[in-house]
Amino acid sequence: MGPATPAPGGRATPGRSAERRDAQDQARLEQGLVDMFENRIVFNSVLGLKVDSVKPADVRGSFAMTPALVGHFTHGRLHGGAISAVLDAMGGLAVMVAITEHHAAETAAQVMQRFGKMGTIDLRVDYIRPGVGQRFFATAKVVRLGGRVAFTQMELVNETGLLLATASASYIVS
Amino acid sequence: MGPATPAPGGRATPGRSAERRDAQDQARLEQGLVDMFENRIVFNSVLGLKVDSVKPADVRGSFAMTPALVGHFTHGRLHGGAISAVLDAMGGLAVMVAITEHHAAETAAQVMQRFGKMGTIDLRVDYIRPGVGQRFFATAKVVRLGGRVAFTQMELVNETGLLLATASASYIVS
Amino acid sequence: MGPATPAPGGRATPGRSAERRDAQDQARLEQGLVDMFENRIVFNSVLGLKVDSVKPADVRGSFAMTPALVGHFTHGRLHGGAISAVLDAMGGLAVMVAITEHHAAETAAQVMQRFGKMGTIDLRVDYIRPGVGQRFFATAKVVRLGGRVAFTQMELVNETGLLLATASASYIVS
Amino acid sequence: MGPATPAPGGRATPGRSAERRDAQDQARLEQGLVDMFENRIVFNSVLGLKVDSVKPADVRGSFAMTPALVGHFTHGRLHGGAISAVLDAMGGLAVMVAITEHHAAETAAQVMQRFGKMGTIDLRVDYIRPGVGQRFFATAKVVRLGGRVAFTQMELVNETGLLLATASASYIVS
Repeated sequence: MGPATPAPGGRATPGRSAERRDAQDQARLEQGLVDMFENRIVFNSVLGLKVDSVKPADVRGSFAMTPALVGHFTHGRLHGGAISAVLDAMGGLAVMVAITEHHAAETAAQVMQRFGKMGTIDLRVDYIRPGVGQRFFATAKVVRLGGRVAFTQMELVNETGLLLATASASYIVS
Repeated sequence: MGPATPAPGGRATPGRSAERRDAQDQARLEQGLVDMFENRIVFNSVLGLKVDSVKPADVRGSFAMTPALVGHFTHGRLHGGAISAVLDAMGGLAVMVAITEHHAAETAAQVMQRFGKMGTIDLRVDYIRPGVGQRFFATAKVVRLGGRVAFTQMELVNETGLLLATASASYIVS
Repeated sequence: MGPATPAPGGRATPGRSAERRDAQDQARLEQGLVDMFENRIVFNSVLGLKVDSVKPADVRGSFAMTPALVGHFTHGRLHGGAISAVLDAMGGLAVMVAITEHHAAETAAQVMQRFGKMGTIDLRVDYIRPGVGQRFFATAKVVRLGGRVAFTQMELVNETGLLLATASASYIVS
Repeated sequence: MGPATPAPGGRATPGRSAERRDAQDQARLEQGLVDMFENRIVFNSVLGLKVDSVKPADVRGSFAMTPALVGHFTHGRLHGGAISAVLDAMGGLAVMVAITEHHAAETAAQVMQRFGKMGTIDLRVDYIRPGVGQRFFATAKVVRLGGRVAFTQMELVNETGLLLATASASYIVS
């Protein structure tokens, strides 16, 4: 984007205000996002949830089946609550990535501050199939990032690509 | 309860199959339910979720805030996924209790076998307020136990009684 | 409320700013709400939906079974979509009533203007039982009216009091 | 399709029952489905909802903006309840089409009988954008047709292709 198309909330740096943050700042932001998600949001680490991609059009994460996540003890299946927890977390991550992209002219620090206003409004999870597998892969996309509310859709598959769950969640963003 | 109090839909054959399971079998069943919920559904123990009541009209559980459950690191708030996981688990427990009561003439072993057919269809969680508190209390009620589907509603409050989340979930039961 | 307890956003009218709108203005507001709901929101009139109460703690409406609302033709049952439409409408009404009460120091005109910012974020309907009956009664309550989002819960029963559907919806309010 | 392409789960009765229903029966079935949907499910006709495709991989319908469907009177927008009603109806249609395909060896009469066991369990609608437009187009897909439960996802766009709403619904099917 050039100066003629100022980004919303862009910095006032003379002559550069509508420009996208530079590659280094972007990398720092992405790294900060991943670190926050995997480590500082502690429950995500309990789930063993790792970020696989924070590209705006491709937000993905995954986690391994572990004894701690078992729900149906006789079958060793994933707990429904672990599924909902992961999909909730991934939806939030996708919204953060979308905010990062939408405010591409802001610094990492400015964008991180926006995350503080975010909150999940509600979540729906459809348990399509029993949670069977060795490793689980979740994708999340932002259907719409509005000025006040963001809508997301998530999916969970196992290592064979079998669809286990879908979810949608809405978030307040300002 | 004796033969004078036939189970719902039970036959009136004196001294036999329509009777409610005896107190000892009922106690064994309740104990089995609590043990399964707190220990064998491993993820529930990760959440620290304890059963406080398995009375049919009063299904309750609770858990303490711990570092592992943190979602919003700057505020030390409960992770939305922990909330959804707990409410999902509590809804399932309420359905199991309702099945236990609906088939009051069956032995503990027969009833436990019915649980194997159960599965969560879907879950919706409304995040009413930020997950702030020291201890959290969840209630679950079965709105309807139908022949094929059960509908549940859950609530989560903190130790001050503040409502933090509500949820509804549907379960396949046969 | 007296002057010692200023209402949020109260008018600056000297010496009276925190007072509740007078009875005449309140009546005008309630009348305007009912008229808007029953007539100007045209689809509500297609549903035959009437407002039975707009008291803050008791928001109710009802409608008759008619051939136009049939969904399951072989049984003459209410269409699921008519149920979801009614519960969506009633949730919105409950939020409007709550706004009316929360801003009790504002004039009818001021409050009506707030309604323009409202929008349904999402809706979940649980179809507890088949939609059988002659007349249907819906209740709606606001679980929380927050600064940005309102959460509601609704129920639909028939003339025998049988619970047919429950719903929850969230609304953006500012 | 001929005898060389046995229907899933079809019996091996020589020359007959495992075959797909013939083209004439298929056409009669599709016609019956459309007629039932547009006319006998009366509320669908109130909505003006027309079926555009009942191909298994492409279930679509549409309807025009009319004064009867207005929700937000000042803007002439579509009522949220009309949106939820349409998406509920389209999800049900998609499930019926999937059943028709899954039991491709059955006659039209046999398949129609299966529809009698169907019921919506629950529905969630996300109102992505205000319901503005002249004509609205809904698509529905069956994410999974299980033995007991079917899961669907729906979308509504206007004539410019703008996404207005998404929905998911689950159905009991046996």
